Amino acid sequence: MQADKTDILKRLNYIDGHLNGIRKMIEDDKYCVDILRQTYAVRKAIEKMEALVLENHLQTCVPEGIKSGSEQAIIEELMQLYNLAGNR
Amino acid sequence: MQADKTDILKRLNYIDGHLNGIRKMIEDDKYCVDILRQTYAVRKAIEKMEALVLENHLQTCVPEGIKSGSEQAIIEELMQLYNLAGNR
Amino acid sequence: MQADKTDILKRLNYIDGHLNGIRKMIEDDKYCVDILRQTYAVRKAIEKMEALVLENHLQTCVPEGIKSGSEQAIIEELMQLYNLAGNR
Amino acid sequence: MQADKTDILKRLNYIDGHLNGIRKMIEDDKYCVDILRQTYAVRKAIEKMEALVLENHLQTCVPEGIKSGSEQAIIEELMQLYNLAGNR
Repeated sequence: MQADKTDILKRLNYIDGHLNGIRKMIEDDKYCVDILRQTYAVRKAIEKMEALVLENHLQTCVPEGIKSGSEQAIIEELMQLYNLAGNR
Repeated sequence: MQADKTDILKRLNYIDGHLNGIRKMIEDDKYCVDILRQTYAVRKAIEKMEALVLENHLQTCVPEGIKSGSEQAIIEELMQLYNLAGNR
Repeated sequence: MQADKTDILKRLNYIDGHLNGIRKMIEDDKYCVDILRQTYAVRKAIEKMEALVLENHLQTCVPEGIKSGSEQAIIEELMQLYNLAGNR
Repeated sequence: MQADKTDILKRLNYIDGHLNGIRKMIEDDKYCVDILRQTYAVRKAIEKMEALVLENHLQTCVPEGIKSGSEQAIIEELMQLYNLAGNR
């Protein structure tokens, strides 16, 4: 997860900076629609970060867990992640 | 997948009937918001049917594929499904 | 809404046909991931149909309602549609 | 927007704190699924904040814009927000 970790932390810093920009917009009473465009962009950035974390999970924990006998727990977690991803 | 299959086909019939109801609403020029509430309900019903198909996939094809050496293909498919589920 | 109505009904027929194709796939025990790709495509088609219905609503009922004094009802409906669209 | 503004800024601070907690989890190599549960919770918190901003927009800018003749611009923006909300 090392290479991904650096990338994920870099994305997290970007998201932080983006949120600070949004705070400024709200404090300065910027137009609501412009603020919403930025919050959507932040959600997209978080989704992209999530995809990295999930890919790492699928590449490591899932095969290891299935091969070492904790199949049911792994599958339940994958269903949960799937439902969370789709806002279900 | 047998028991699920019957349940999934039953849900598909329900969705079919629901769509016919929506067709009638549109033909009768019913209020847009009422129509949209019904199309959202249909999408929810499809999502629930999808969850059954996915659960079946996770319980059978995923462990079998991982144990029989087609790990990469299985993982790529799971990433695709995850992105599709989240409209990404 | 007339021109849209014809287009919306045409899309609804397309969705119907698509669902029949999915029914066949399930009956024939096709691969789960292929089935899920099709159900996602159907949801996308429904979303596109919804956008037409919503655009029609925004162009007609919303301005008429706001100008004729039923502002609160119109706004509450828009919030509901917004939440439904985002699976909230 | 004053009362909402305070509430929105408070929610933004909560989201900030939550992201810092996620950074710590990543740095400490916590379990991927636990990290993903937290990033989903952050997205939910952002969605709730968005709903406040949108409600404020619907209550003020939309009726004012429609009554003062900038109907088309307002409607186009609402379609955009709707599509962004549904990840379309």
